[in-house]
Amino acid sequence: MSATKLKIGCAGLGRMGKRHALNFLERTPRAELVAASTPDDSEIEWAKVHLAPYGVIIYKNYDDMLKHEGLEAVVVASATAVHAEQAIKAIEADKHVLCEKPLSTSVEISQTVLDAAAKKPNLKVMCGFSRRFDASYRDAHRKMMSGALGEPSVLRSQTCDKLDPTGFFVAYAEFSGGIFVDCSIHDIDLTLWFFGQDSRVKSVSAVGITAVEPDLRKHNDRDNAVGLVEFYNGKLAYFYASRMMAAGQEDTTEIIGTRGKVTVNAQPALNLVNVFDNTGIRREIPQHYYDRFEYAFVTEANEFTACCLENTPAPLKLEGAVQAVRIGAALQESLITGQKIFFDESGNRVEKTKL
Amino acid sequence: MSATKLKIGCAGLGRMGKRHALNFLERTPRAELVAASTPDDSEIEWAKVHLAPYGVIIYKNYDDMLKHEGLEAVVVASATAVHAEQAIKAIEADKHVLCEKPLSTSVEISQTVLDAAAKKPNLKVMCGFSRRFDASYRDAHRKMMSGALGEPSVLRSQTCDKLDPTGFFVAYAEFSGGIFVDCSIHDIDLTLWFFGQDSRVKSVSAVGITAVEPDLRKHNDRDNAVGLVEFYNGKLAYFYASRMMAAGQEDTTEIIGTRGKVTVNAQPALNLVNVFDNTGIRREIPQHYYDRFEYAFVTEANEFTACCLENTPAPLKLEGAVQAVRIGAALQESLITGQKIFFDESGNRVEKTKL
Amino acid sequence: MSATKLKIGCAGLGRMGKRHALNFLERTPRAELVAASTPDDSEIEWAKVHLAPYGVIIYKNYDDMLKHEGLEAVVVASATAVHAEQAIKAIEADKHVLCEKPLSTSVEISQTVLDAAAKKPNLKVMCGFSRRFDASYRDAHRKMMSGALGEPSVLRSQTCDKLDPTGFFVAYAEFSGGIFVDCSIHDIDLTLWFFGQDSRVKSVSAVGITAVEPDLRKHNDRDNAVGLVEFYNGKLAYFYASRMMAAGQEDTTEIIGTRGKVTVNAQPALNLVNVFDNTGIRREIPQHYYDRFEYAFVTEANEFTACCLENTPAPLKLEGAVQAVRIGAALQESLITGQKIFFDESGNRVEKTKL
Amino acid sequence: MSATKLKIGCAGLGRMGKRHALNFLERTPRAELVAASTPDDSEIEWAKVHLAPYGVIIYKNYDDMLKHEGLEAVVVASATAVHAEQAIKAIEADKHVLCEKPLSTSVEISQTVLDAAAKKPNLKVMCGFSRRFDASYRDAHRKMMSGALGEPSVLRSQTCDKLDPTGFFVAYAEFSGGIFVDCSIHDIDLTLWFFGQDSRVKSVSAVGITAVEPDLRKHNDRDNAVGLVEFYNGKLAYFYASRMMAAGQEDTTEIIGTRGKVTVNAQPALNLVNVFDNTGIRREIPQHYYDRFEYAFVTEANEFTACCLENTPAPLKLEGAVQAVRIGAALQESLITGQKIFFDESGNRVEKTKL
Repeated sequence: MSATKLKIGCAGLGRMGKRHALNFLERTPRAELVAASTPDDSEIEWAKVHLAPYGVIIYKNYDDMLKHEGLEAVVVASATAVHAEQAIKAIEADKHVLCEKPLSTSVEISQTVLDAAAKKPNLKVMCGFSRRFDASYRDAHRKMMSGALGEPSVLRSQTCDKLDPTGFFVAYAEFSGGIFVDCSIHDIDLTLWFFGQDSRVKSVSAVGITAVEPDLRKHNDRDNAVGLVEFYNGKLAYFYASRMMAAGQEDTTEIIGTRGKVTVNAQPALNLVNVFDNTGIRREIPQHYYDRFEYAFVTEANEFTACCLENTPAPLKLEGAVQAVRIGAALQESLITGQKIFFDESGNRVEKTKL
Repeated sequence: MSATKLKIGCAGLGRMGKRHALNFLERTPRAELVAASTPDDSEIEWAKVHLAPYGVIIYKNYDDMLKHEGLEAVVVASATAVHAEQAIKAIEADKHVLCEKPLSTSVEISQTVLDAAAKKPNLKVMCGFSRRFDASYRDAHRKMMSGALGEPSVLRSQTCDKLDPTGFFVAYAEFSGGIFVDCSIHDIDLTLWFFGQDSRVKSVSAVGITAVEPDLRKHNDRDNAVGLVEFYNGKLAYFYASRMMAAGQEDTTEIIGTRGKVTVNAQPALNLVNVFDNTGIRREIPQHYYDRFEYAFVTEANEFTACCLENTPAPLKLEGAVQAVRIGAALQESLITGQKIFFDESGNRVEKTKL
Repeated sequence: MSATKLKIGCAGLGRMGKRHALNFLERTPRAELVAASTPDDSEIEWAKVHLAPYGVIIYKNYDDMLKHEGLEAVVVASATAVHAEQAIKAIEADKHVLCEKPLSTSVEISQTVLDAAAKKPNLKVMCGFSRRFDASYRDAHRKMMSGALGEPSVLRSQTCDKLDPTGFFVAYAEFSGGIFVDCSIHDIDLTLWFFGQDSRVKSVSAVGITAVEPDLRKHNDRDNAVGLVEFYNGKLAYFYASRMMAAGQEDTTEIIGTRGKVTVNAQPALNLVNVFDNTGIRREIPQHYYDRFEYAFVTEANEFTACCLENTPAPLKLEGAVQAVRIGAALQESLITGQKIFFDESGNRVEKTKL
Repeated sequence: MSATKLKIGCAGLGRMGKRHALNFLERTPRAELVAASTPDDSEIEWAKVHLAPYGVIIYKNYDDMLKHEGLEAVVVASATAVHAEQAIKAIEADKHVLCEKPLSTSVEISQTVLDAAAKKPNLKVMCGFSRRFDASYRDAHRKMMSGALGEPSVLRSQTCDKLDPTGFFVAYAEFSGGIFVDCSIHDIDLTLWFFGQDSRVKSVSAVGITAVEPDLRKHNDRDNAVGLVEFYNGKLAYFYASRMMAAGQEDTTEIIGTRGKVTVNAQPALNLVNVFDNTGIRREIPQHYYDRFEYAFVTEANEFTACCLENTPAPLKLEGAVQAVRIGAALQESLITGQKIFFDESGNRVEKTKL
């Protein structure tokens, strides 16, 4: 074959890692998955069956994978705790990086990735906010940005997971950064996309409850939370995050402009089927995040590949990923302390803002 | 009170009769229900409780009611078999008439009502096609007739009842005139409304099955039937009627124009509620015809009253009611014989039409 | 007529007063509108045409109307500023009272109505929260209260008006009590209905903007506002109010339980019509509050009438009306000061609640 | 690479040919597109840019492509007129075949493909009815076949194209076989899928109009047509086909069982976006067939590949493709002659069936 392909490796083969690896292997024509790494034995077994037969070399050690001959890029899909470290190592090894969100649950650590990337302006370093690649969100963004709906002013967005009856999310909360960093980070990123990446926060406040899992309080987390974010440009956003949905994944956004509004997924649906029976008319909805955004991840893989091969700007700026963590962490703090938090126009905390 | 009210009597106090009586009693401010008649003892008992206390005189005999002092109008809501006879008697007694559909299951008998009315041009004689008074159908009609959607060309309409597990509709089929005369008559009337009251039929053909009640065949009827009607003005309509809906009443219409289309009730809903649970998202739908069209009947009562009081044209022309029965009866015949039926431009049957 | 009717008078014949008067005149079979009062000459002219012909006596002075022979009840539909005064006068004159919401924009004045009513336990005194009479809200309440959807835990509700390009709402804001008292009062009342009338508030916080009408700031108001309310029973509610909707009135509520959720009007629709044209599929939505809730007002009139005639408990407790104003006023204060407000379990303000 | 891939060639690189070629090249991991053929110079130019760089050999002559070293399978995506000939040649050259629908507009010619395939039972020969691979149709089929909705009894299905203002479809009608063979063939295939592949036709009847393109009559075609098909197993289907949709592609199906029904695409939507503006709430819909069914074609390519590699039964039986053409051609004949056509239980035409 003469057409050049991007040689990429996948770090981590957990739930999301497997998906990224297969997307780069099978659904990204211009990429060639050449390597994958995981310290986990069962993941290595999986890789032997699903990746190795197609020529993918499996590494137990991430640092070894980085030395893979000809490797040009890395998708970091490991545990959040090592996102930043692995991303920085890849940058230092001159690899392009697509890193799963968030860079880190810590603003400071997230910033270190940004700093590392700043030293290698030739590399593409991107944090994967998958909704930016979703066809519906893109259509909504295009429509709002066309101006036909006026100035975007209020944004409502929610990331709501189906209740996992195993309660796995309780243990998970220890490392997730909390519901606003883990879930609402997407809604925050969307807000920055629709309101302008340079929107500066004036205040955040949040409240939450533990309706189904009181044990979340041990990890300073909640199972339902609502947050308000006020911006200096006269816009406001409010977010709802939940671990308690009965029907499935409900990620809904509406952007309200001065002359109209646009909604995404206000009427969730798994597909185009409706069932009529003696209980009424019923439709199913996606059960999990990936059911809803599968094709967005495929688009993300393809667009990341294209920008690396063609040396065009990455679809997302890395700065936004740090800004999103900053807002998410402030909301989480407000959720736990019960206090409203104020910022001045330079982003410093203040006791109170001028009205 | 000085404002004049229309003094009206209600013939028949069965299921629909009760509704008409109460609508004229309670929800038609310009009418005064002064009398009601029924030969049925249990209906008389009902009337003693629900009508008599408000000054309504109850008659066991229809002819006696017609002689009620000051009576100006009659709503005929008795069994279909006596619609025509009672309507004609009322006309002859110089009363305005609102007659439940159909005038008769027989075209010839229906015509006798028209003939009687023709002799009393001062009277308002109207057959109650309730959908003409429904806010959604009126909105659809207005939108199509505005011309914005082009020339109405194809009409699909269905009248589908919720399955009655008692199978009552089998016995009922003996007198109903069949599913096309009993149910599709509404769809036929809508077709004439949207395509023009003077649309002339070129051919009709129909097929049907007995999916749940084979016994309907004893009465030359079916529980599901589809009919096609071709018109000389280059338009066509197709109808579906069923006794077998699981979720409720499903009366849906779409009118397709050369530049757009308009649908009525393509997404049935009882109200504005959606339930999200582990089976998905669900809404309920109206269970019976009256649940869906209750307010149309109220509007019908009010508009009939207004045209009588103000001597303005009736909202519906009586000729249409005969034309609708004619088409319905032809469809029913085609359903049973399995033959397509052709008409010339004068409405006479022919072996075959010119292509 | 032998069936007893409730003799009622209507105070105020402005926009809502006209509707209440006509509803009691024409659509409340067990009530008899005997009187109406208004100091406004043009409203008196309207009444001469629309009410007087049906025997309604028109008064220029409210106090005179209260002395109308045989008057048993009053619907107070005048300007908010005189709601409380008129309601109290009616109570003192031994009339049942249906008072438009809010009793007053002031918590203290609202309480005076409650105090007056407490002295006449034989009277029905009710504040008209119309959504409690809406068929969809009632269905949602029944479904949630059946327990099938688990414990109601989070409530989202919005009252959003279509943008009035005349900007009338700016002048109106001077007396409205602000957007949370004027609009969100309905959402607050719904919250108390779904969460329990005795739910005690732990904290409120709110933010808002003036996206279309900066002049609202002169009256300490905003055109878009979001508020959070935390309750001591572990539930939370969040509200959005806006004066800026492009498509029409958008009053949406969702109540999220531990095993399911129920939404009301999440997919607004004026009727059952959809238009398909070269811009896609389109439906219209109600333009104003009354378009959406017309039948709820009719039901309210009928149920108020029934409880007076039968001496049964009023459908709504008056205490809730004061509690709703209290929460609305706190939200409005938080909106303007930018501060979160905390309450202890007795309802007293505190600096901070225990986490 | 050690994992075996199916070596496939694509015959034809017109609109559908390009899509099939790219799907096998980029979105079918287990297939390797090794060759493509087209006699058309502009299509060859396209292939030089889009296929050749990835190692695909381009042939001007189909017969030459069949001799491509190691070729195992062919996707026939050329003009309908040569489908059968090319499919038969491939079968005779021992290649698996995925043939675009229809095999031919002629029943007799369609049958020759079946005959050729019968001689090579080791080959997979499949006609691409793409809807069978659509996730929504599959979900509907699974739900109906689970039995929960009772016995499928009535099927309504439509294939309606957006109006092409260039009127291209008039010239196209000369070779398309007519609207029932070109469009409704999909609906017919769905009917056989839901009702049982061995359902025998009792009668067909059809009517049609030329609402926008009278010139279609020159080619014995119509721009809007409705057809009825009655089966000997007591089921019935009715189809609507149109070239005149204003909003986009509207392919809707509902299958009505004795205890419930299932609909596919009764509420068309391009994506999850709704726009609210001063005209109401609006959503867009797919504009063309491929917009709606893109992923179904990808699934088709993957499943065809899998059955060839694993020697498992093809997802579709080839017999159905001939049966579908037979029914489509009979509907088209009825559309043009205006006569209802009857069949006996052996599939022979008769004057009239027994009632």
